Amino acid sequence: MPQTMKVSVLNGVHDIVTEERPVPVPAPDEVLIKVTAVGTCGSDVHYYEHGRIGDFVVREPLVLGHEPAGVVVARGADADSHEIGQRVALEPGVPCSTCTQCTIGQYNLCPQMRFFGTPPIDGAFCQYVTLREDFAYAVPDELSDEAAGLLEPLSVGVWACRKATVGPGARVLITGAGPIGLVATQAARAFGATEVVVTDVNAERLAVAAELGATGTVDVSAEAIADTGFEPDVLLECSGVPAAIGPAIRAVGKAGRVVLIGMGGDEIPLPLAHVQGNELEVTGTFRYANTWPTAIALAAGGDVDLDRLVTHRFGLDQVTDALTVAARDPKVIKPVVLPQVSRVA
Amino acid sequence: MPQTMKVSVLNGVHDIVTEERPVPVPAPDEVLIKVTAVGTCGSDVHYYEHGRIGDFVVREPLVLGHEPAGVVVARGADADSHEIGQRVALEPGVPCSTCTQCTIGQYNLCPQMRFFGTPPIDGAFCQYVTLREDFAYAVPDELSDEAAGLLEPLSVGVWACRKATVGPGARVLITGAGPIGLVATQAARAFGATEVVVTDVNAERLAVAAELGATGTVDVSAEAIADTGFEPDVLLECSGVPAAIGPAIRAVGKAGRVVLIGMGGDEIPLPLAHVQGNELEVTGTFRYANTWPTAIALAAGGDVDLDRLVTHRFGLDQVTDALTVAARDPKVIKPVVLPQVSRVA
Amino acid sequence: MPQTMKVSVLNGVHDIVTEERPVPVPAPDEVLIKVTAVGTCGSDVHYYEHGRIGDFVVREPLVLGHEPAGVVVARGADADSHEIGQRVALEPGVPCSTCTQCTIGQYNLCPQMRFFGTPPIDGAFCQYVTLREDFAYAVPDELSDEAAGLLEPLSVGVWACRKATVGPGARVLITGAGPIGLVATQAARAFGATEVVVTDVNAERLAVAAELGATGTVDVSAEAIADTGFEPDVLLECSGVPAAIGPAIRAVGKAGRVVLIGMGGDEIPLPLAHVQGNELEVTGTFRYANTWPTAIALAAGGDVDLDRLVTHRFGLDQVTDALTVAARDPKVIKPVVLPQVSRVA
Amino acid sequence: MPQTMKVSVLNGVHDIVTEERPVPVPAPDEVLIKVTAVGTCGSDVHYYEHGRIGDFVVREPLVLGHEPAGVVVARGADADSHEIGQRVALEPGVPCSTCTQCTIGQYNLCPQMRFFGTPPIDGAFCQYVTLREDFAYAVPDELSDEAAGLLEPLSVGVWACRKATVGPGARVLITGAGPIGLVATQAARAFGATEVVVTDVNAERLAVAAELGATGTVDVSAEAIADTGFEPDVLLECSGVPAAIGPAIRAVGKAGRVVLIGMGGDEIPLPLAHVQGNELEVTGTFRYANTWPTAIALAAGGDVDLDRLVTHRFGLDQVTDALTVAARDPKVIKPVVLPQVSRVA
Repeated sequence: MPQTMKVSVLNGVHDIVTEERPVPVPAPDEVLIKVTAVGTCGSDVHYYEHGRIGDFVVREPLVLGHEPAGVVVARGADADSHEIGQRVALEPGVPCSTCTQCTIGQYNLCPQMRFFGTPPIDGAFCQYVTLREDFAYAVPDELSDEAAGLLEPLSVGVWACRKATVGPGARVLITGAGPIGLVATQAARAFGATEVVVTDVNAERLAVAAELGATGTVDVSAEAIADTGFEPDVLLECSGVPAAIGPAIRAVGKAGRVVLIGMGGDEIPLPLAHVQGNELEVTGTFRYANTWPTAIALAAGGDVDLDRLVTHRFGLDQVTDALTVAARDPKVIKPVVLPQVSRVA
Repeated sequence: MPQTMKVSVLNGVHDIVTEERPVPVPAPDEVLIKVTAVGTCGSDVHYYEHGRIGDFVVREPLVLGHEPAGVVVARGADADSHEIGQRVALEPGVPCSTCTQCTIGQYNLCPQMRFFGTPPIDGAFCQYVTLREDFAYAVPDELSDEAAGLLEPLSVGVWACRKATVGPGARVLITGAGPIGLVATQAARAFGATEVVVTDVNAERLAVAAELGATGTVDVSAEAIADTGFEPDVLLECSGVPAAIGPAIRAVGKAGRVVLIGMGGDEIPLPLAHVQGNELEVTGTFRYANTWPTAIALAAGGDVDLDRLVTHRFGLDQVTDALTVAARDPKVIKPVVLPQVSRVA
Repeated sequence: MPQTMKVSVLNGVHDIVTEERPVPVPAPDEVLIKVTAVGTCGSDVHYYEHGRIGDFVVREPLVLGHEPAGVVVARGADADSHEIGQRVALEPGVPCSTCTQCTIGQYNLCPQMRFFGTPPIDGAFCQYVTLREDFAYAVPDELSDEAAGLLEPLSVGVWACRKATVGPGARVLITGAGPIGLVATQAARAFGATEVVVTDVNAERLAVAAELGATGTVDVSAEAIADTGFEPDVLLECSGVPAAIGPAIRAVGKAGRVVLIGMGGDEIPLPLAHVQGNELEVTGTFRYANTWPTAIALAAGGDVDLDRLVTHRFGLDQVTDALTVAARDPKVIKPVVLPQVSRVA
Repeated sequence: MPQTMKVSVLNGVHDIVTEERPVPVPAPDEVLIKVTAVGTCGSDVHYYEHGRIGDFVVREPLVLGHEPAGVVVARGADADSHEIGQRVALEPGVPCSTCTQCTIGQYNLCPQMRFFGTPPIDGAFCQYVTLREDFAYAVPDELSDEAAGLLEPLSVGVWACRKATVGPGARVLITGAGPIGLVATQAARAFGATEVVVTDVNAERLAVAAELGATGTVDVSAEAIADTGFEPDVLLECSGVPAAIGPAIRAVGKAGRVVLIGMGGDEIPLPLAHVQGNELEVTGTFRYANTWPTAIALAAGGDVDLDRLVTHRFGLDQVTDALTVAARDPKVIKPVVLPQVSRVA
């Protein structure tokens, strides 16, 4: 085992450098994981661009990256649930496990949550990380390293479908065909949804949605949802665009469920009379809880295709490129960082 | 049985007259009910003042009144569930019973609903009405006629508590101490809520709330909810005041439930980041379904005091007074119309 | 329209004859349906063999058959939801729609239910039937007439999966690979179950289960479930064999759900300590409610293959053969009666 | 702080002695609690009489007692949620907090559970115990020490009512008026049940049930439930008497819920046809999860009277008497041990 490792550090807005740091030592209940692939997320980009997301402010150097996969290379004294060499997906947030939120099963709301790449907790754009052993999930051979990392965004989709109680016969509207919209599309289909209509303003993204299982797509730059005649009973809002949310909610029919996933700022207009007259249930998601086993089952069983989302690959010295490529190339879905590689040609 | 009866008719804005009309004849599955008491509701006042509520427009003469109690005086050929002379509370909306909404148990969302006092369906400000027998509920002697009528607003409170899954240990915030806020307060306590804090800007209303079971009251003209330190897990919004709804929602803690009961117009601001970060569940109510048996049990068992809400009584020739007294007297909670009486001295 | 039709009538145990009867006239809210295919069910066989099922006794001549499909050929005065010529699947039980069970959404428990082929209500082994229009469901071209009839047993599977809250990641044990076990297998997969293990004592039936989506099969004449290492979180009990039910329940893990579908007599042994120690939830099913739209979506979308279940076809004069073929031929899954045909060669 | 304390130790069947042992030292996340009162439970009696309960066998000396209250007298290095001197109720089972059962909110099913007075974990019939700080709950002055201890059996009742979704309007049958039946009775009323009928074969116990809120009682040695005309929608089975369970389940009406709380051996007869025909939901309870806050709210608010259950008090040297008094005196409900006292006169 090497003594040091390479780490990609965000020192401030638009300032990422690669450093050498000691390889961390696992606590008794932790494993040490050699990181093989890490997806990039819009929140990584946001920290890089703005140095903060809401109340979370980057005040000290921070390692980004919270969609990692890797291999167990060492174990703490009490950690025995994985063998050395086990390929794992990492659930990147560890709660306190003892507060009320944790004991009632909604640990994603734990106030003591330590979440990768969220100030002041370092993430996974580095060569090794430690993690409580029960948050490392063995992955089967069917899953590539990259797919194992993308179980994290898939978990967002799984969680949203659970919140929306998507099941056979459901008619689902998904607003936004970015990475989250695309995993939500696949999750909704895997949960049995009969119709999944995806909206976006980008034809290429909509084409990918169709390829991944959407039964219909709407380019809302050309056609309003209300004009399509589609009456969903579930809305999975993945755009975060305030102006789009109202019309989408108004499309939802009686006793429908609305799950607000996309981050759209502090406040949006809610169509109160429509919510009341149809008794819609509206909720939002904050990460996820207890989703990895389901996400692994869906991806390993072929119901969900995560590899299809990977459009670009970068080495650890190229994290800046990984976080800026989306702005340059509309075809970007999910850039992945490979921490054991310095540069991808 | 008389051939004709007196009916209070809304002919237009600010134009109510008493007319003579034939006593209606019950259909085979209906009973004929002699109306003994009818509560007045804010929506009655709104039709009287504005001639419409949203898309419901008074185009023909309309009989208002949808909080009635009475006595069964005749039965249709197939109606056998009540004896002649049975005192009954009337659920004032009859759905089609065969559409999807009806068969899945949410008949309040039936598009074919025929609801008393909602254009073009006549209500109960009259001496006799017919009703499908299964929507007339036998009431025990413990309940006065007036209380039997006020099972209708109590049903709103029961429905809201069900939507919010209020139970033992719940900490409930109720915004607005009008008639709905006061039944919601009592319903929440009857559902087992441990803390029920009621807000209003009127000290007299808050005093009634405290009398009826509120464990705390806040005059929001003097103190913000956020400053009280109270962290509810349920909000029953009964004010319909858009400016008040946002701060109330922001007071609700992790995984809390918000039920929007008060009608507050087409659109309100929703604190998205708070809803997401705490995974709040937000919904609205549209009337109620399957609530009368529970409401009767609560009122008959003494858990809820409906008589306390009755502050004023009027005869059938005084419906205009009943609908305008609230504007003149801040002590008004619930004026009741007694259709068998012309004028109450 | 002909004035008379052919009807297959059960006059007593082992006594079925074809009669001529008047074509029924639809009531105002009914449609008249020309029956194209009717599945046979174990309960049809039971009435034929024993003249009763529990408290339901055949005292008058009875028409069996409750898995019908057909074409709308006439409409009552108020029936306008289907065009003449529409192919439909028939939900074969019409509840009163106004009792408490009906209004709360569990109309399958309606005490006034009129169910096809259950004394004293006639079924569909005949050329024409009438049905309340909302219980006739339009079927798309993707579905054959026979598949449209078999939406009825599929509904049993859908209902069971709903009761069991089967979803992605579920590990489901299905005991019994008869027709109900086979639709339950397909339904469970369509609801997202990751593992579906089916047990039976007949290798041929197990082979069909595997063909239709079971991820594993166990011949319980050779191997006990407990020895397989499979720990389900859901049991769909479709065998009705009392001796098999106990071991199956004991296989279910913590907080698992058990749905007892197979009819196994008045009483079975329940492993109390196991139910308590694991807080299992055990329930049984009685028909279904609100399942046809989901069943149609699953069958039309290709998630479920109903045609594969049809192994034998008979004309209306061969109902006795249809009900006795299973005893002669272990390869029988689902014999179908074609009422417009006298005899299938 | 003393160095040693008195401990009541079960060395074998019918063999309890008082020993001197070191006062335990709290781990970093634990508090040290001076025990003020401990209720006795039927399981304590069973271990005393038989040396085992099912698979749990007393192989080493064991301290019984799992209904304790006390005062925090010392804190581990990381324990800061209670002040020294805080009166607390103890939830007597600490799960691992990291397994699947724990993270999904059903920690009562944790396979690593360490539960007081269950081999090989020592209980609270002693002067001091340590406990993870989050399992010690501050109790308000309204609650006596004894009542604080009896929050444990109340938790059983709260858990059962949650499992049964008891709410306003519920009609509840409770079989058995022992300590658990009596807390279930009170919990059911506090959850809003309209009717609570309790059965037993002992008139004195039934009188206590009536005193504590039962709306009806049935002496089943004289009258069968079926003859009473009471049709419950919930059964809370607290007797554990196999012969009584069947008739009680058969009394439950359509879509009713059955919660099996009383321990009645490995197997009982389940009335399958009744469960299916009415789609009853049957489950069992294993302890409880997340119940103390609710139990405290109910007891502190006066909805539940726990002091009324305490019929006998004993000192630490009298544990044998506490565990055998029930056999001698039919008026015994709940004997309490006061560990800071040697003998109660």
